[in-house]
Amino acid sequence: MFVALAGGIGAARYLRGLVRVVAPSDITVIANVGDDIELHGLHVSPDIDTVVYTLAGVVHPEQGWGRRDETFHIAEELARVGEPTWFRLGDRDLATHIVRTARLRAGATLSEVTAELVTAFGLELRILPATDDPVATRIATADGRELHFQEYWVREHGAPPVVGVRLDGADAARPAPGLIDAILGAEAVLICPSNPVVSIGTILAVPGIVDALTETGAPVVGVSPIVGGAVVRGMADRLLPAVGAAVSAAGVAAMYRTWLDGWVIDRRDLDAAGEIEAMGIAVAVTDTVMDTIETSEAVARTALALAGRIRGPGWVADPLDPSGGTGPTPGEAKRRARAVA
Amino acid sequence: MFVALAGGIGAARYLRGLVRVVAPSDITVIANVGDDIELHGLHVSPDIDTVVYTLAGVVHPEQGWGRRDETFHIAEELARVGEPTWFRLGDRDLATHIVRTARLRAGATLSEVTAELVTAFGLELRILPATDDPVATRIATADGRELHFQEYWVREHGAPPVVGVRLDGADAARPAPGLIDAILGAEAVLICPSNPVVSIGTILAVPGIVDALTETGAPVVGVSPIVGGAVVRGMADRLLPAVGAAVSAAGVAAMYRTWLDGWVIDRRDLDAAGEIEAMGIAVAVTDTVMDTIETSEAVARTALALAGRIRGPGWVADPLDPSGGTGPTPGEAKRRARAVA
Repeated sequence: MFVALAGGIGAARYLRGLVRVVAPSDITVIANVGDDIELHGLHVSPDIDTVVYTLAGVVHPEQGWGRRDETFHIAEELARVGEPTWFRLGDRDLATHIVRTARLRAGATLSEVTAELVTAFGLELRILPATDDPVATRIATADGRELHFQEYWVREHGAPPVVGVRLDGADAARPAPGLIDAILGAEAVLICPSNPVVSIGTILAVPGIVDALTETGAPVVGVSPIVGGAVVRGMADRLLPAVGAAVSAAGVAAMYRTWLDGWVIDRRDLDAAGEIEAMGIAVAVTDTVMDTIETSEAVARTALALAGRIRGPGWVADPLDPSGGTGPTPGEAKRRARAVA
Repeated sequence: MFVALAGGIGAARYLRGLVRVVAPSDITVIANVGDDIELHGLHVSPDIDTVVYTLAGVVHPEQGWGRRDETFHIAEELARVGEPTWFRLGDRDLATHIVRTARLRAGATLSEVTAELVTAFGLELRILPATDDPVATRIATADGRELHFQEYWVREHGAPPVVGVRLDGADAARPAPGLIDAILGAEAVLICPSNPVVSIGTILAVPGIVDALTETGAPVVGVSPIVGGAVVRGMADRLLPAVGAAVSAAGVAAMYRTWLDGWVIDRRDLDAAGEIEAMGIAVAVTDTVMDTIETSEAVARTALALAGRIRGPGWVADPLDPSGGTGPTPGEAKRRARAVA
């Protein structure tokens, strides 16, 4: 099994390549739900939907989220009756939120609803929300406000200077059922090229997930969301400084260093390789801008190859116990391997 | 103030005429909510919406319900994810249900939500649900099932033979706030040409409403939903026999006879006039098929003229007490006037 920690667009483009390399039924996606928001009484899970729509081939091809062939008649009507419409939901997209909300109101968990939607869209992979418990990414702005992530990003166009980010509800949140076991039992854990603060960071904020990434015997290999020292898309350039991280391939790797084993970086960031390797993290270099499905597949192949390389000699076996059988757990072996690297 | 008891299409076509004759702000509509149903987790109020859409000029002109310029993208998507779609909701229409449901979940009453929607659609009349409490019209079929009205009418196309109709929840239902006072204080109470069983009948099933119609000092004047001994539209021909009533202008008048003062019938039912008058109900005759706004207005004028005629000599004044001032209440006077008629 392969496990992938995923945000929205960047993750979806990576995963559309991954499903061409490994069997979709062997993939578990752990999805960010910090962006989730209730709008017009409906539960919207933007990152899950972006992954589902992309893999189902129904995503809006240019914008990378929402539905292709979309209409906005409901948004027009909501405006007519005075509803706030800064988060302009498309008609087809709304069907997903209507069904999700109906299921949640009827007592289903977000995991269960997500599994139903994945099946309904004809997909064979598994998508687990980072948590079934209510969480929300909150953005502290320089002018003293705290906004929901979507208020900051969509309503205010990411304009307010950011001084902090937190996942509200994280303290009481439990990883979705099966999530920790998926990480611990994975063949490889992949970190999608998603925002390290508000996509991957909010997954990591759910208690137990960082521990599992640290403990797992699987190599943990990420794809850098930074290209040429800048973000491919999104708001990482505004959010990384707010959490004290550098906007660079090495800066993001440093955020993950306690559990990251391999890092796929773009050719334009080649000069960061030495700094990353000095953290004990293996590096692979490729073109990481996934503007075609072929490049998506190539990036996935590179990440899996790096995982295989890490998993190779000196990895699973305990260097202190060549017999293997009675040695440390894979996680312990991994940490020792890191320590001796 | 004018009060109108209303179902869906027939009522809406009558009301579009009424608002041309009296100020909309002087009209209170009492709307049937027995047809209300939760679909996909959303609260749908078909009769209220038909009235609102019609008066706002956004109703589908041919079918008389739903929105003009409608699309069905959400219905397509709901089918994709396996939702039952026999009640095919349009996209623009769904916006209303989304907002209504969000408000109800947030704690608003159906009356409050309805008032918001009425205002949002630019209307000046008042629409009160018959009750804010949960009720549902249930249809007992000859094959021993009990269906929600919409299951019977929309899903099963009104095909199953009907043996009974009841308003589930009626025992515990209270009239919407202000409803009883509106009837008691009205200048005239109008009964729209709606189905006597599943539109008007389900309003009358809410405890207190029949008493108010009986007590009010206002003339109560209806428009017959029967034309030429048959129903104009809908399922009255199947439902009237199920409740023991004749499918005729006189048959429906007989259902209302304990509180009905005047009955507007179609020219084609002129031969029923004597039978209706023999019940102590005044009759006016006109063309009642409201296929244009002008005919809608003419029917409304006829009903109001009949109310005025009833209200005239011998009506409000107590025939046993010509001085008036210390006589019976208007309701008592009305019943005595009926008794001496």
